[in-house]
Amino acid sequence: MNNNAKILTNSELKNQTPSYLETIFSISNGHFGVRASDPVAKSITAGTLVNGFFEISKINYGEKAYGYAENNQTIVNLPDLRAIEVFDAHHRLFDKSQLETQYLNMHKGLLVSVYQISNSAGQSLKLTLKSTIQQSPDSIIGLRYEIRSINYTGTVTIKKHLNIKNNHKGSDDPRKSRQISTLSYEKNVLDSSEVLKVSTQQSHQFVEIGVYSDGGLEKTFVLKPDQRQDFDFLGLVGPINRKMNLRKYPTFTQILADSTRFWNDFWAKSEVTISGNDELNQAMHYNLFQLMSSAGRDGRTNIAAKGMSGTGYEGHYFWDTEMYMAPFFAFTNNKIARDLIKYRYSLLDLSKKRARTLGVDQGALFAWRTIDGHEASAYYPAGTAQYHIDADIAYAIYCYLTITGDKDFVEKYGLEIVLETARFWKNFGSYSLINGKKKFCFFDVTGPDEYTALVDNNYYTNRMAKFNLEFAVKLIDEFSRKADSLGVTTLEKKELAKIAKDIYLPYDQKLAINQQDDSSFQKPVWPFSQTPSENYPLLLHYHPLTIYRYQVNKQADTLLADFLFDDLSKEQLAREYDYYEKITTHDSSLSRSIFSALAARIGLQNKAYKYFNDTVRTDLTDLQGNSCDGLHLANLGGSWLTVTEGFGGIIIKNDKLTINNHLPKEWNKLTIRLTYQARRLEIVYLPNNTEVHLLAGKPIVITVDGASKMID
Amino acid sequence: MNNNAKILTNSELKNQTPSYLETIFSISNGHFGVRASDPVAKSITAGTLVNGFFEISKINYGEKAYGYAENNQTIVNLPDLRAIEVFDAHHRLFDKSQLETQYLNMHKGLLVSVYQISNSAGQSLKLTLKSTIQQSPDSIIGLRYEIRSINYTGTVTIKKHLNIKNNHKGSDDPRKSRQISTLSYEKNVLDSSEVLKVSTQQSHQFVEIGVYSDGGLEKTFVLKPDQRQDFDFLGLVGPINRKMNLRKYPTFTQILADSTRFWNDFWAKSEVTISGNDELNQAMHYNLFQLMSSAGRDGRTNIAAKGMSGTGYEGHYFWDTEMYMAPFFAFTNNKIARDLIKYRYSLLDLSKKRARTLGVDQGALFAWRTIDGHEASAYYPAGTAQYHIDADIAYAIYCYLTITGDKDFVEKYGLEIVLETARFWKNFGSYSLINGKKKFCFFDVTGPDEYTALVDNNYYTNRMAKFNLEFAVKLIDEFSRKADSLGVTTLEKKELAKIAKDIYLPYDQKLAINQQDDSSFQKPVWPFSQTPSENYPLLLHYHPLTIYRYQVNKQADTLLADFLFDDLSKEQLAREYDYYEKITTHDSSLSRSIFSALAARIGLQNKAYKYFNDTVRTDLTDLQGNSCDGLHLANLGGSWLTVTEGFGGIIIKNDKLTINNHLPKEWNKLTIRLTYQARRLEIVYLPNNTEVHLLAGKPIVITVDGASKMID
Repeated sequence: MNNNAKILTNSELKNQTPSYLETIFSISNGHFGVRASDPVAKSITAGTLVNGFFEISKINYGEKAYGYAENNQTIVNLPDLRAIEVFDAHHRLFDKSQLETQYLNMHKGLLVSVYQISNSAGQSLKLTLKSTIQQSPDSIIGLRYEIRSINYTGTVTIKKHLNIKNNHKGSDDPRKSRQISTLSYEKNVLDSSEVLKVSTQQSHQFVEIGVYSDGGLEKTFVLKPDQRQDFDFLGLVGPINRKMNLRKYPTFTQILADSTRFWNDFWAKSEVTISGNDELNQAMHYNLFQLMSSAGRDGRTNIAAKGMSGTGYEGHYFWDTEMYMAPFFAFTNNKIARDLIKYRYSLLDLSKKRARTLGVDQGALFAWRTIDGHEASAYYPAGTAQYHIDADIAYAIYCYLTITGDKDFVEKYGLEIVLETARFWKNFGSYSLINGKKKFCFFDVTGPDEYTALVDNNYYTNRMAKFNLEFAVKLIDEFSRKADSLGVTTLEKKELAKIAKDIYLPYDQKLAINQQDDSSFQKPVWPFSQTPSENYPLLLHYHPLTIYRYQVNKQADTLLADFLFDDLSKEQLAREYDYYEKITTHDSSLSRSIFSALAARIGLQNKAYKYFNDTVRTDLTDLQGNSCDGLHLANLGGSWLTVTEGFGGIIIKNDKLTINNHLPKEWNKLTIRLTYQARRLEIVYLPNNTEVHLLAGKPIVITVDGASKMID
Repeated sequence: MNNNAKILTNSELKNQTPSYLETIFSISNGHFGVRASDPVAKSITAGTLVNGFFEISKINYGEKAYGYAENNQTIVNLPDLRAIEVFDAHHRLFDKSQLETQYLNMHKGLLVSVYQISNSAGQSLKLTLKSTIQQSPDSIIGLRYEIRSINYTGTVTIKKHLNIKNNHKGSDDPRKSRQISTLSYEKNVLDSSEVLKVSTQQSHQFVEIGVYSDGGLEKTFVLKPDQRQDFDFLGLVGPINRKMNLRKYPTFTQILADSTRFWNDFWAKSEVTISGNDELNQAMHYNLFQLMSSAGRDGRTNIAAKGMSGTGYEGHYFWDTEMYMAPFFAFTNNKIARDLIKYRYSLLDLSKKRARTLGVDQGALFAWRTIDGHEASAYYPAGTAQYHIDADIAYAIYCYLTITGDKDFVEKYGLEIVLETARFWKNFGSYSLINGKKKFCFFDVTGPDEYTALVDNNYYTNRMAKFNLEFAVKLIDEFSRKADSLGVTTLEKKELAKIAKDIYLPYDQKLAINQQDDSSFQKPVWPFSQTPSENYPLLLHYHPLTIYRYQVNKQADTLLADFLFDDLSKEQLAREYDYYEKITTHDSSLSRSIFSALAARIGLQNKAYKYFNDTVRTDLTDLQGNSCDGLHLANLGGSWLTVTEGFGGIIIKNDKLTINNHLPKEWNKLTIRLTYQARRLEIVYLPNNTEVHLLAGKPIVITVDGASKMID
């Protein structure tokens, strides 16, 4: 591999299938993303995705019941902006294509793709496509086509236009996407540009997408071997539901310069450097690059489970954002962290209605999977029943507050969310006698682990609800005037505090560990030794009833709570880790990062390192075999969590930044940049030492490896 | 009301909507049923249903998973055999119609419907349609149209043909049916008959349906006021997948005579007479009449949840047969009881495959709802998860054996079913530590109560599984040679016996009652006082997640086990009844009969009487508001269970018939006819006495009101 951590070349990847490379080399800017298609190959999986641009269709149920999600929401796959037609003098297409090399420069946000393309006469050209996407504003991708003749002499014509495509075929796999048949198109062709207005007939959205080039979209020129001609085009993607309003068109060079500035600034604030393993270091950079590229930045959009790198999970937003990605932004980019919270804030009214539909008289219940805030999960046992999303969102607000110290924002947007989610828990749960004591319980819920559904007192859910209520009480105290305006009475505050105290947390006396739910330890352990490796992921090979009746986990569940709250003795944590690791398949890409981070904390350095290897390179190794559908965004964020909160031992404890050095023995140095309470910090982990440098901001006291330290 | 218990007149019914009357006055013969349509009104809900004639269509899932039921099975609504066109001299239809009276004569199996029909000139005829259905053979319905002029003079033409109809519109309500669009038709018109071959394109079945009349299907005649002409037609329905093969056509009179003989014989063997309340007595007769009419009699068909009286539940067979209807047949008609068991026997291979799909390596799992044996339930939490159907089928075989003493049949057909279902339980369940003891448990199951789903150790399921295993061991001992041939080893028998002993039966020490499942008593009780009456049935007004997280029952669950096994002290039974009654909505038509029967046994005579009133007249009062979709067959059988096993106190205890008189104070006499161990008995319950008469067969000793009695 190359030793520049910010360059990724396709030759470093094992999988070379086009649809996989389209995902890996996709580039995005929070608003839209372009899959890295071969421009002359007319790939059916190519395309352009706009964050939050989706169509709806009625969900068909085998048997429908009251309150079920009504509509699918499906991200629209728009025409491929990279596509181009190249003709020879006889109007034959150069349409046989071979990728020579492709690399992503993450210093600049520049993707370079080199192809050898041939016509039916066996004559060939070298086509180099350089692309770079505007980061701010965010409507343009710059496309430079460099065409050099290899063995062709004569006229060459290139034509660029927008191909209306069949939207991706539907699939039974819930992790993929479905077909859309209700789009309408309006094309506007001018001399130098072509703009297509794509409208969704059911969700009533539209987006304008276009191509532009100075002097027109068709270019004719003459080449002979080794001669080269370059042409710049722009791909244009307007905002959702507004006309494109471009007063002037930037040059490719201008876009690239802006992009380079943007990424320089990003790395200055977010750089994570692993010294001692170039492969991991590169993967880490790749993950942060794509994470940043994928986050909605307007307060109306969020981060799709696959970003804009593919149509998997239909462009939906999940708890993935809050639990796996938001901490990165809270620590490196306040503005985006705020935008992500604003998005949830905008859904509060809808979510209150949803709570009513679920028979809960107060509070708000956020949709498990959604783009516009309506529940789009067609299988409630692994959808709506994951009530924990409410507390996950509250937790993200807690992270934002403690990391940034930005009270104003939390008062304005955060308190109401935390309050309404706390109210939900209060009304959703109920008191029950547990071992003779009245404890507050939650029945028929599903925790993060989707291989266990509809259980009572899921530890994670209960622990998170407890947190949510405690945090609400804290915010009510802090922002009492605002709380008053939201109708909080002294009595209600007392109630919330009492319930928080009374929430039941299942614990097994004999094993001396927290218990995933009331019944989990009663069930037989999954027969792992009789399960052939091709039967993973289990969800594709066993009926849910089969999976549910065993102790088997798709992902971290109780351990995720342990990771978040760091509230166990080291011994108990080690026991829990040992117990749950044995029953976890990691069939979810949300699993390994947490297992790695916890192992690092416990001191299981080998395990930590192994899981980290897998998690940080999940997409680069196509570990789950489905990266062609899009990147595993939560896992990108998860790998950052692993490094910072696992190996880096960064935790906010008692509102104070705490750092513990768990550097793997394989590394000689780890450097992390982040911003805490308005201080830009660089933390350098060495085998026997941890240095913290203040790059900007006022001095601050933090705890490093157990000792209080003034950073100045 | 009239005081003939075997006549039901429409004027005795409150609901007079045509689709409701079509159901109530539908007549059937186990093979096909004809809804009692107004013959000139072209009702869209009218039609002819053939037991087991269905089309399949792919089930659409919002989110599909491994092992889900693949296809819907939907009973086909065939052309209405009652329909006729009546023209005046100017070719105007007499198509405005008014029902004058309609009555069902259950002595004879004769339905008489009288209409006044008018043309657009306001001229009227009186149309009387008498219909009677062949009981054996079973291909013909006799239809006599008597036409009398009221104020019309002139030529009248009647034409009979088969209208191909749009099949019933689909519905979201899982209790209704869905549309079919994949039928093909082939019509064969002769002088005196018209035969339509209806083929299903997906399930590859066909049925021939026809109409016939001596001298042709069109008749022209002249009437003047008060003059009358009568015409006989036959409706023909061939067997499934075979050509109609009628060598000669019986006359209406012959059919009626045969039918009358059939019903005379039926009543002689099955009569239940309630003296003291004509309304209940009539309802009881009606229920038995329809129950008998609905049962498949060929070993290839069963009893649909709505019989052939309507398309509700799509013509599917459920556990309803075994638990609510089979006892009636075991006690009154051995042949049908055997046919119902043979039907299940024919599904054993399919059911073994289904068990594998559900991750169980041995044994058979019967489909929860089906016609052809494939699972057709599109919502597994209230479908496939009701594993108890396996034990329910075993239980029906137990009833058959103990009631009839027919060992040969049980050896040939019963043992294998009981064994394969027992093997299922053995492999499905697992040992777990409960209060320090190793007990055999079943996880993630749904019991009969569909308002509680996916729970652990459902009492009913566990109790029934225990029974199933015990019964298997008993049969293995009894039929050891046959058991050997089925691969049963001594070791396996031991295992089955041990598991039966070890099965965990949840019991609450504090309440001193059996507990519905591991978590049931932890959950809060449904807020009944805050639930408006229009919100019942709950399933149409609350999300399943809302219903599941409360203690609320749709129907008898633990109490059903109590009813079947009669193994509790009177005190415990009273406590359980009291507890569960308070949380039961009776939203299922399978509930009240059991509550009534148990109340009778406990001595809660007022409750018993009230529930019986509701249950016995469920359809006649349209208690659930959906009798238009078809009769509630299980409830018809349930009302017989209530009378015989509740008020009549009939139980098989230690393989001996036991009778306890629980005659309600409102009645002065109750007479029940049944056959036990080849003895035809008439049991007469009087307020202070119980008489048992031997009508046929050898003397036998039974227990009556606590004392052993020789019946001779």
